[in-house]
Amino acid sequence: MRNVNQETVTQVFLDYCGPETPPRLRFLLEHLVRHLHDFVRETGLTHDEWRTAIELLTETGEITDAERNEFVLFSDVLGLSSLVDMINSRPDATSSSVLGPFHILGAPELAFGGDLRRDNDGATVIVSGQVRGADGAPLPGAAIELWQTADNGLYSNQDPSQPEYNLRARLAVNDDGRYAVTTVRPAPYTVPDDGPVGKLLHATGRHPWRPSHLHFIVSAPGHRTLVTELFPHDDPYLDEDAVFGVRDDLIMHYEEQDGSRPPPVGLEAGDRLTSPYYTVDFDFVLAAEA
Amino acid sequence: MRNVNQETVTQVFLDYCGPETPPRLRFLLEHLVRHLHDFVRETGLTHDEWRTAIELLTETGEITDAERNEFVLFSDVLGLSSLVDMINSRPDATSSSVLGPFHILGAPELAFGGDLRRDNDGATVIVSGQVRGADGAPLPGAAIELWQTADNGLYSNQDPSQPEYNLRARLAVNDDGRYAVTTVRPAPYTVPDDGPVGKLLHATGRHPWRPSHLHFIVSAPGHRTLVTELFPHDDPYLDEDAVFGVRDDLIMHYEEQDGSRPPPVGLEAGDRLTSPYYTVDFDFVLAAEA
Repeated sequence: MRNVNQETVTQVFLDYCGPETPPRLRFLLEHLVRHLHDFVRETGLTHDEWRTAIELLTETGEITDAERNEFVLFSDVLGLSSLVDMINSRPDATSSSVLGPFHILGAPELAFGGDLRRDNDGATVIVSGQVRGADGAPLPGAAIELWQTADNGLYSNQDPSQPEYNLRARLAVNDDGRYAVTTVRPAPYTVPDDGPVGKLLHATGRHPWRPSHLHFIVSAPGHRTLVTELFPHDDPYLDEDAVFGVRDDLIMHYEEQDGSRPPPVGLEAGDRLTSPYYTVDFDFVLAAEA
Repeated sequence: MRNVNQETVTQVFLDYCGPETPPRLRFLLEHLVRHLHDFVRETGLTHDEWRTAIELLTETGEITDAERNEFVLFSDVLGLSSLVDMINSRPDATSSSVLGPFHILGAPELAFGGDLRRDNDGATVIVSGQVRGADGAPLPGAAIELWQTADNGLYSNQDPSQPEYNLRARLAVNDDGRYAVTTVRPAPYTVPDDGPVGKLLHATGRHPWRPSHLHFIVSAPGHRTLVTELFPHDDPYLDEDAVFGVRDDLIMHYEEQDGSRPPPVGLEAGDRLTSPYYTVDFDFVLAAEA
């Protein structure tokens, strides 16, 4: 009697893994292979379906390059990237959310209250708040990176018509751990749907839209770095984000200001704000490092 | 309350799939995404582990080309390809086994009893048998393709020193559905382990060897085409095939012949056989088409 049949193959795979297998790798492989084998057995996967899957993976490899990773996009639209974010979020901290493919290093530093708008179209919004530890203490040593789309729904590294580092900055934090920046409202946009991921979206009647959002990376000594996004409360795609990035605690509220109240103190754009403009108040809470 | 958290994300994914989703695709996606999400939740997959997986998939795409599909090889060494073969095998027919990447079209036809050895090194083996339906009736209309490694463990399309179509043929079947061919014993060989699949094998202490085997595709009008492999009973890798291809009913027995019995009738090589040589008798049973 040979060792492999459809009931034994999973155990045979596990038995192949030798004693030198790192324990965490063995654990991951055991769970991965059990799930993949169960998937094949439960669905009665046909040879044609297997070939279609191989072709889709092959195409995914072909379209992937330094600028576009279609494997990440598959992970995103299947909810895997967001699930990894959620299970690694700390309940005592602001939720994390997808990093996405548009972050770049080297954005310039912007002083507290600085103005990122330059020649960008779009409604003005002043975003401000505080960075705190889970114990409530302000974190004046915090560093914040912000990046977002222009009014056309494109990031600066997707759009040659935008200046380098347009709508990207490292935001200075003041002695109270507070930040403030004047910018424009970001726009909803679509994930690329001209490749294998697009085939899946089209076959299942899904749209490729993401709600508009601001990206942040917030870090502070002794604390877990937070990669997250904020979404406006009135975005039409909040409950149908193509990549499942929205969380309950990541909603920001645009408060329309009609000019009857003076703009917040210390803003670079203070005397150049025209009504109406919007304000957003959002505090980030970082968990202590393990 | 927004809709996505780690408990709801799987259902949200399913709810995204619109009414135009083909029912079988919906079924496959539901099972696939439930298993992938459960995998992430059960293992508490970290961001670093997720990144490692994305990098491995990206490398797998990079090394894949028209000659080598590393996604297929991953499917093979994880036991997925063989599991698909097994669940699609019919209990009333010979088991199927991996097609592998070395099959090519256009091999020449060889008459009943023909000799494939030409200048190949290796022990002589006469393989013969009958093709039958599941009802026991011989199938004289059957077509058989055979391909195998030379004595150096390489297929003709891997080895420029071999003639084109070396050790490949379409075998004619006689009026009783019988076939017979003189060839050399194939050799064990390794799957490619210089890429991402090799990383997995090395990390888990696995060797890349396959037991020696003969590849067959057997077809006949009104019957399901059989893609399979035969493995000699004395191969040292029978219970540790890197791609899980061995089945109980795919074992062939090399019977050593010392020349005391005359060779089978009707062999092209009949009077040029030198002792010792081997015989293998193996019958193929095809299931009726659904």
